[in-house]
Amino acid sequence: MVMEKILWKHIESVRSKSPLVHNITNYVVMNNTANALLAAGASPIMAHAKSEVPDMVALAHASVINIGTLDEYWSETMLLAAETSHKLGKPWVLDPVGAGATPFRDKILQKLLAFKPIVVKGNASEIMALAQANEGATKGVDSTADSNEAVNAAIGLAIQHETLVCISGETDIIVNGTQTVLVKNGHPLMTKVTGMGCTASALIGAFVGVVEDKTEGTTAAMALLGIAGELSAEQVDGPGSLQLKLIDKLHNLSEKEFYDHIRISKQ
Amino acid sequence: MVMEKILWKHIESVRSKSPLVHNITNYVVMNNTANALLAAGASPIMAHAKSEVPDMVALAHASVINIGTLDEYWSETMLLAAETSHKLGKPWVLDPVGAGATPFRDKILQKLLAFKPIVVKGNASEIMALAQANEGATKGVDSTADSNEAVNAAIGLAIQHETLVCISGETDIIVNGTQTVLVKNGHPLMTKVTGMGCTASALIGAFVGVVEDKTEGTTAAMALLGIAGELSAEQVDGPGSLQLKLIDKLHNLSEKEFYDHIRISKQ
Amino acid sequence: MVMEKILWKHIESVRSKSPLVHNITNYVVMNNTANALLAAGASPIMAHAKSEVPDMVALAHASVINIGTLDEYWSETMLLAAETSHKLGKPWVLDPVGAGATPFRDKILQKLLAFKPIVVKGNASEIMALAQANEGATKGVDSTADSNEAVNAAIGLAIQHETLVCISGETDIIVNGTQTVLVKNGHPLMTKVTGMGCTASALIGAFVGVVEDKTEGTTAAMALLGIAGELSAEQVDGPGSLQLKLIDKLHNLSEKEFYDHIRISKQ
Repeated sequence: MVMEKILWKHIESVRSKSPLVHNITNYVVMNNTANALLAAGASPIMAHAKSEVPDMVALAHASVINIGTLDEYWSETMLLAAETSHKLGKPWVLDPVGAGATPFRDKILQKLLAFKPIVVKGNASEIMALAQANEGATKGVDSTADSNEAVNAAIGLAIQHETLVCISGETDIIVNGTQTVLVKNGHPLMTKVTGMGCTASALIGAFVGVVEDKTEGTTAAMALLGIAGELSAEQVDGPGSLQLKLIDKLHNLSEKEFYDHIRISKQ
Repeated sequence: MVMEKILWKHIESVRSKSPLVHNITNYVVMNNTANALLAAGASPIMAHAKSEVPDMVALAHASVINIGTLDEYWSETMLLAAETSHKLGKPWVLDPVGAGATPFRDKILQKLLAFKPIVVKGNASEIMALAQANEGATKGVDSTADSNEAVNAAIGLAIQHETLVCISGETDIIVNGTQTVLVKNGHPLMTKVTGMGCTASALIGAFVGVVEDKTEGTTAAMALLGIAGELSAEQVDGPGSLQLKLIDKLHNLSEKEFYDHIRISKQ
Repeated sequence: MVMEKILWKHIESVRSKSPLVHNITNYVVMNNTANALLAAGASPIMAHAKSEVPDMVALAHASVINIGTLDEYWSETMLLAAETSHKLGKPWVLDPVGAGATPFRDKILQKLLAFKPIVVKGNASEIMALAQANEGATKGVDSTADSNEAVNAAIGLAIQHETLVCISGETDIIVNGTQTVLVKNGHPLMTKVTGMGCTASALIGAFVGVVEDKTEGTTAAMALLGIAGELSAEQVDGPGSLQLKLIDKLHNLSEKEFYDHIRISKQ
C-alpha cells in the first residue's frame, strides 16, 4: 500500500519537529498523556484557564480537547479553545469521552462540533452517541455497539461536520467521508489501562500538528500506538506494567519494528 | 472460617459483572484508582460536574466519595452525589481523607455522613477524628492513633450512622456494629505509595456494587488489595515499582494465591 | 568540598523527620510528586481549597506552589498560601512553570514573588522570563536559553527578592546572591519524563522544611534527584520505566551510592 511508506516519515516528523500540543484533557490521564506525547517526541502543555487558553491555542501546533472530567468551567474553556482554534485556523482534535452518558455531555459536544474539529476520535459507542444526539434520537452509551453501525455514524459525522472521524477499538477505523482506513494493531490488554483512547487522541494531536494530510497523520498515530501497545503487552504480566512499557516503546520504537508489525488496509 | 469460602466468589463476581463505579475522588490518585478498578474487573467513571452527577449516580452500581483534594465546588458536588445516592437507594462509600486536619474538612464530612454511606473507610487517625468531630471534641490528625481507640470510634460511628466502618492499617478492621472482622494482609512498603487507602475505598465501591452482604464485600476488597500488595512487594525494589506491580497482581491474582495468603479472623 | 559532607546528613534528616510538605501543584504531576516525597521520606499533602489553605500552611513544614495548571481560582489560592506563609514565617518554594508563555502566568508570578519564596526553582527559560517580566521587557519562553544569561537573571532575582534561585537543567545552578553552586548530576532521559522539574521543586520543599541552611538544603535535593535519576536511567529502556525506577531509587539510595556519584562544585 502506498500510504504505508509515508507513515514512518510522519513518525520521524513528530520526533524531529517536536510539535507543541496544547491539551485540555481529563484529570485521570493528564500524566500519561504528557508522558506519551514526550515519548513520541512532541512537546505537551496542559492549560485550561480561560485567562490564557486563547494564548495557548495561538502558541501551539494543535489543541486536543477531551471531555472526560468536564464541568461547567472546563466546558466553557473547551468551547473557548475550540472557537479560538477555529478562528485562527489551527487544527484541534475532539475526544468525546462518555458521549451519550449524560445530557450535559451531549449538549457540550454538539456545541464543540460546531467549531469544526479536524479529527473526532472516540470508541464505537461514543461515535454512535454523537451521531444519535445529532439526529435527536435516544441517547445512551452502548458498549456493545456494532462496528458497522459506528462506521455509518462516523461517515455521517464526517460529512456533516467536514471532519475526519477515528473509531478506536480492536480495529481502529478512520473515515474522512470519501475513504476508510483500517488499522488492526493493538492488544486486548490495552483496554485494561485507563485512558488508552485519550493517549490516542493526544498522539493524533501531535501528528495533525505537523502532517499536512490529516488521514495519514491520524493513521500514523493509531498505528504507532497500536504497535507500541502490542510489542509492550508481550513483555508484561498485567496492565500496570503495560502502562509504563508502552511509554518506553513509544520512545524507542524503530522503523523495522514499525514495518514488521503494521497491519493497515483501505476500504 | 465460613466467610473465607465466599470471598473469592465475590472477587469473581466483580470480575464477571464489571460494576460501574462512579468516583468523585482526589486529583492525586485518579489514575491509579481507575487502573485499580479496571484491574479488578470493574468499570470506573470519574465525573464531578454538578450538571451531571445525579445522572452518573443513577447510572452507576455504586459511588465512591473521597475528599482528598476537596474545595468549595467539589464539596457541593460530593454532597449532591451523596444525597442522590441516598434518595435512589444506591450504595456509596466515604473516604474521609485528612479528617481532623482542618475545620473545612470536618464540616463537610459531617454533612456527608448525614446521607448514610454504606461504608466509611479511613485510617485510624481519620476514623478517630470523624468520631471526635461528631462529639464536638478537639479535632486533630493523630498519626500514632491507637488501634483499639479507633475501634471504639468506629463502633460508635457504625452504630450512630447505621454504616459499616473499615479502618485501614497494618491490620484492617471492619466493624458493622455487631461484629468485627480483621484482615491481616498487606505489606509495609504499601504505605510508601500514595493513595493506597484511596484504592482500597474504590475497590470497596466495586464490591458493594455487586455483593449483597456489605461486610463480606468490604472484607473481600481489603483482602484482595492486601494480598495483591504483599505478593507484589516481594518482587520490587521500591514503591514506584510496587504501584505498578500491584495493578498487575489485582488483574492476575488466582484463587490459589488468594487462599494461600489470606489472613482474616473475626472478633 | 566542605558542603558535600553535610549533604547526606540532610537527606537523612528528611528521612527521619518526615516533614509535612503542603503542595499546591499541577494536575499532571500530583501523583508523582506525592510519590517522590514519600520515597524521599517526607509526608506530602495536596490541598488547594481557599477554605482550608491557611490551615494547611500552618500545619506544614513548608509549602510548594507550582503554577503548571493554574486558573483563576487556583491563582487566588496560591496567593493566599504564599501570603499566609509569608505572614507565618513558613518557608515556601515557587515553581514558575511556563513563565513567559502567557501574560496571565507572568502577572500571577509577579504577585507571588512579592510574598518572598525561600527558593524559586525553574528551568533557564522560566528564570529568564521571570527576570524579564520583572524588568518590563519582552516576554517569551526561549527553550534554547543560554545558561550564563539565566545565571545573570537568577542573580538579579535572588538579590531583588532576597531569595535563592535554582536553575534546573543539564547542570543545576543554585544562586543565593553571594555564591553559586553547580550540581552536575542527572541524565538526559529525565527530560523525557513529564514533571521532573516539579519533582525537584517538591523535594526542595521537603529539604527547606527541615534544613536550616537553604542553599545546602536545595543542593541536597537537586543532588538526590540527579543521582537517583542517573542510577535509574542506566537500568531502563525508556522514560515510562524511568519514572517508576526513579521513585524506587529515591527510596533506597544509599550513602555510598550518593557519594560515589555526586558531582557538585562552587563558583
